[in-house]
Amino acid sequence: MTAEVVPTAAALVIGNEILSGKVQDTNSRDLALLLRKLGVRLEQVLVIPDDRARIAAAVAHLAKSYDWVFTSGGVGPTHDDVTIEAVAEAFGVRAVTDEETAQLIRRHYGARCTEGHLRMALVPEGAALETTESVRWPTVRMGNTFVLPGIPEVFRMKLAVVEHVVGRHRPFVSHAVYTKMDEGDLKPLLDAVVAAHPEVDVGSYPTWTDPRFRTKLTFDGLEESAVVAAKERFLASLPAGEPQWTDP
Amino acid sequence: MTAEVVPTAAALVIGNEILSGKVQDTNSRDLALLLRKLGVRLEQVLVIPDDRARIAAAVAHLAKSYDWVFTSGGVGPTHDDVTIEAVAEAFGVRAVTDEETAQLIRRHYGARCTEGHLRMALVPEGAALETTESVRWPTVRMGNTFVLPGIPEVFRMKLAVVEHVVGRHRPFVSHAVYTKMDEGDLKPLLDAVVAAHPEVDVGSYPTWTDPRFRTKLTFDGLEESAVVAAKERFLASLPAGEPQWTDP
Repeated sequence: MTAEVVPTAAALVIGNEILSGKVQDTNSRDLALLLRKLGVRLEQVLVIPDDRARIAAAVAHLAKSYDWVFTSGGVGPTHDDVTIEAVAEAFGVRAVTDEETAQLIRRHYGARCTEGHLRMALVPEGAALETTESVRWPTVRMGNTFVLPGIPEVFRMKLAVVEHVVGRHRPFVSHAVYTKMDEGDLKPLLDAVVAAHPEVDVGSYPTWTDPRFRTKLTFDGLEESAVVAAKERFLASLPAGEPQWTDP
Repeated sequence: MTAEVVPTAAALVIGNEILSGKVQDTNSRDLALLLRKLGVRLEQVLVIPDDRARIAAAVAHLAKSYDWVFTSGGVGPTHDDVTIEAVAEAFGVRAVTDEETAQLIRRHYGARCTEGHLRMALVPEGAALETTESVRWPTVRMGNTFVLPGIPEVFRMKLAVVEHVVGRHRPFVSHAVYTKMDEGDLKPLLDAVVAAHPEVDVGSYPTWTDPRFRTKLTFDGLEESAVVAAKERFLASLPAGEPQWTDP
């Protein structure tokens, strides 16, 4: 991976509770925000049920297709927690008990420790167990695939480990312009910017609810000078007197 | 599709703004809640960038694999709105202007109408244009694939059209139990219920933040009697005096 190549990532969210609408997934957005900060391009989010065969097939495919894969959910002691076994299957290894994690669990639960609790020490054979100074409980990483828990508070806590292991790459630069013009009128202006700045990702997002503006335009890229040039070109093309504001 | 077979669905969310973390996707959850009510099983949510080739490949695959497909986003006049062309490509047809929609657009914008606005009249050739009494603006459906807009307020409005066309199937029944026991201790109790009631989908969700309970158990299925029996079996297996409450 050279400095010129943007690392890519996929998120695999595992959970019947999300597909049935019982729970709003927020983990993939928290991950998206972190990856953006790290300069890693999140190229896909896939939400599937707690189904071992489907998880294994998805992990096998994603781990080959992207630099990093992050699973969320299906980690725990109960029958519906099948992610560890599925990741093991995807990598063609067994799920085995990690003795160090088992010790941590025995120490934590003491006399109350059950076979159920000890299931949380299962890891794909050969997995790395990542820790940081602040996050001491081991985080399972099998090759390029992080196995993260579904509980949002715990997922967020583990992102510090992701940041530590993945590291910071060249960050994305993002500028925004807000205008009261609608997309139909903006189209020729945007087409001109897109044609002149193919290296800048130009986004156009209408709002139906914010009274302050009608369309938000975003200019994203790796080269700050190119992003700024595209934004300035767009601003210069707006009709005189058209209200707009920018961020930054 | 007989009454015994549960129709299946996939959601395809199109949007760089979601993958970059700028926006939290809520459309797939609103869709999930509706499909649950209609008795349709949402089996996958896939979020991908505004990339015509990727959208086309995803639609072609999903439309063959599920009874219904719902795309969200990438519909509009600007350069990053490529969903209509991609859906057309997936179905092997051209994108053409629908004259009736073009008339609606011309009437709406009057003298201000631009080529950009008229791009919103593009449809895959042969698409059905669905309307209801309350949602008069046409909603594009190509075979089993609904093309829905990304703006959450408009997406939600269009769900009335989805409900109208998809119709109500046998609804899912869902019961929940809340307990202060942890998953490690619950595991043997849940394993017994899962073994006795393979037709009921039993879910176990720990919380780290709600002081009222430690684990939420869900019992979902098509047969109310089976769901209730599984829940009752679980309740009867809880240690005497263990606090719990149920919903319903």
